[in-house]
Amino acid sequence: MNSSEFRRRGKEMVDYVANYMEGIESRQVYPDVEPGYLRPLIPAAAPQEPDTFEDIISDVEKIIMPGVTHWHSPYFFAYFPTASSYPAMLADMLCGAIGCIGFSWAASPACTELESVMMDWLGKMLELPEAFLAGNTGKGGGVIQGSASEATLVALLAARTKVTRRLQAASPELTPGAIMEKLVAYTSDQVVATLGTTSCCSFDNLLEVGPLCNKEDMWLHIDAAYAGSAFICPEFRHLLNGVEFADSFNFNPHKWLLVNFDCSAMWVKKRTDLTGAFKLDPVYLKHSHEDSGLITDYRHWQLPLGRRFRSLKMWFVFRMYGVKGLQAYIRKHVQLSHEFESLVRQDPRFEICAQVILGLVCFRLKGSNKLNEALLQRINSAKKIHLVPCHLRDKFVLRFAICSRTVESAHVRLAWEHITELAAAVLSAERE
Amino acid sequence: MNSSEFRRRGKEMVDYVANYMEGIESRQVYPDVEPGYLRPLIPAAAPQEPDTFEDIISDVEKIIMPGVTHWHSPYFFAYFPTASSYPAMLADMLCGAIGCIGFSWAASPACTELESVMMDWLGKMLELPEAFLAGNTGKGGGVIQGSASEATLVALLAARTKVTRRLQAASPELTPGAIMEKLVAYTSDQVVATLGTTSCCSFDNLLEVGPLCNKEDMWLHIDAAYAGSAFICPEFRHLLNGVEFADSFNFNPHKWLLVNFDCSAMWVKKRTDLTGAFKLDPVYLKHSHEDSGLITDYRHWQLPLGRRFRSLKMWFVFRMYGVKGLQAYIRKHVQLSHEFESLVRQDPRFEICAQVILGLVCFRLKGSNKLNEALLQRINSAKKIHLVPCHLRDKFVLRFAICSRTVESAHVRLAWEHITELAAAVLSAERE
Repeated sequence: MNSSEFRRRGKEMVDYVANYMEGIESRQVYPDVEPGYLRPLIPAAAPQEPDTFEDIISDVEKIIMPGVTHWHSPYFFAYFPTASSYPAMLADMLCGAIGCIGFSWAASPACTELESVMMDWLGKMLELPEAFLAGNTGKGGGVIQGSASEATLVALLAARTKVTRRLQAASPELTPGAIMEKLVAYTSDQVVATLGTTSCCSFDNLLEVGPLCNKEDMWLHIDAAYAGSAFICPEFRHLLNGVEFADSFNFNPHKWLLVNFDCSAMWVKKRTDLTGAFKLDPVYLKHSHEDSGLITDYRHWQLPLGRRFRSLKMWFVFRMYGVKGLQAYIRKHVQLSHEFESLVRQDPRFEICAQVILGLVCFRLKGSNKLNEALLQRINSAKKIHLVPCHLRDKFVLRFAICSRTVESAHVRLAWEHITELAAAVLSAERE
Repeated sequence: MNSSEFRRRGKEMVDYVANYMEGIESRQVYPDVEPGYLRPLIPAAAPQEPDTFEDIISDVEKIIMPGVTHWHSPYFFAYFPTASSYPAMLADMLCGAIGCIGFSWAASPACTELESVMMDWLGKMLELPEAFLAGNTGKGGGVIQGSASEATLVALLAARTKVTRRLQAASPELTPGAIMEKLVAYTSDQVVATLGTTSCCSFDNLLEVGPLCNKEDMWLHIDAAYAGSAFICPEFRHLLNGVEFADSFNFNPHKWLLVNFDCSAMWVKKRTDLTGAFKLDPVYLKHSHEDSGLITDYRHWQLPLGRRFRSLKMWFVFRMYGVKGLQAYIRKHVQLSHEFESLVRQDPRFEICAQVILGLVCFRLKGSNKLNEALLQRINSAKKIHLVPCHLRDKFVLRFAICSRTVESAHVRLAWEHITELAAAVLSAERE
């Protein structure tokens, strides 16, 4: 495909994407397909000769779309949101074209430098302590990881390297195995210090945990994968109080801040804690500015060597929404979750199972787990809306997460109406 | 931005991308900027109110492009290629719009199923042993990882889990620390069994290493990050002989197979080796087909939970090039590297430092390392072409890697002419 064909096909794809987003509400949110549906629909091996673009795009509707769970449908209330916005999609097109691999400053200076500055922008939006910002001369700074799991693993490995070196220096007679056995990682039942757990969006008290970790010289990593985006609103910022005690902090703009996957934001107070653990310096990656102390080589901050120009997405989204636009987006979602909460509270057959703080409502029918399992089963079989459950203190609970960028009050009300109809059916089936 | 503005801006971006690719040859391949160039050019914090798209796109030319190393310029001969093709870009646009997170089959069945089938397509192109394919009932199969580092880490952790369980079962009295100390990972001086090392594209002999690993019940992971793409050509397939002894194998279509980053292909013979090590089953990720044995939940095959619909890129690229088109692309690059090799061999001042097998030529001026360092310094200061060095047995060597999709014989000849001119200057400076 040459560039003039790309001009044509690219514009067709832009229209396909816009049509998809505009019409997503009319697609069934959860697909009808059964496991193994796709394999018989396509050839067993790649074609020897090229297929046409027309063939492929028609197969997208015929083969792919019937098997898609539409995460951006306003009737999708499952898991947590995953970000989707037009500015991020535009930036991703540019990112794909530049196609640089930013493992070192020299590999594409703009890729590294925009990332440092965007992480500072975002840190300032969250009012992170100065120590986490890179600025011109800071010892800390931010990096984009692929996922919160990756950020947690990076923090864990950095912490392990740091404490292992400390123990080795203090007790040179210890074998590596003996040191290993001395290492302890404390986690809650939802893992590491978490702000906004997946099950019910609960919050650890950092003002209790933080000083303790500092006193015991323990690495404190805070994961706010979903909730972190809300901290750009002053009224939610208090949930982050205590972050000043942390060594590392991360959350996912690719969840709730309109920056398409993947973009997991991670900050550390001491960049040398990361670069000390991951430094990798073969000669083919060396460059003339390496030892100037002026530059950041992000390959030392992460597990993979390769990395895309992901900060472009942040730049486009932050600029095209503005901080106020992003705050308005968060507030709309929180308001919708409270609207759903109040609908649930008005119905005496139901109960709310956890405090509604951000965009997640945990609720259930008063009664047995079996009853609630039956309700969820009916909901997800009807496929008008999509939810997933969680367990809270042995109770089977339904999670209603405000997810889509385009979800409105009307969708939430329709969803609730639908749920109550199915609940009535489940309750009457139980009485029979 | 609503969808009608996206239709307009998206099409402008398609043109921007096509213009960039068409005009890339006239941009200086390596930028002039100094560390810290970008921060003063943009505000210290995100704007409160939205900026316009016009402002942003004009800043791309003013602020971003001056700091970009143009990896897809036909004068870029550094590192290894990173893939770039229009079909992959089109697929990425669609991937961004669907925006599903495919951690389980249910989270988007098409995302999981297309990936399994595409990995089979690619496995067949490479003539991988049947045991690595998923098919309908296979015990093995493929998964897309983000990078070769991630694939290697996944293999390492799976191997560690497997051998740890074996040791625990055989000697229940051993402490975890004692077991740790018994574990050994063997690597070459370029790490794990490697086909096509980064420094000089050398190959380990799998027919020697493989049977030994099998006899000693050791996990064999083979990394062919760059070279793997070449194995779709029958004339290079012999380099992969011995893969039948491996437990896991990976290479990066995002390097040399026209599938834009990220797409690192990994296969295992026993999928239970991965799922045994990484299985993660909170109730909010459970779905009704979970225990049917029919489905693949890719979250058990990788470190992160989230994953994009990356197989769309493979599908678009494989179909729009066809196997023959992909083979022709590989062959063109190999032919260009041999063309450069023969230019070097015709000049008695130079020597070739490693056998040229695929798209990499390692060469140097006969003489001291200092001389060659001076030559490289001149080349990269002139910024007409871009190269990086390596060390081979204490010799400082220049790497000439065929990288760009659009590089032709004329670019290679111009590059060589330029190198010989600078070499003459370096040699005459030395004589003075």
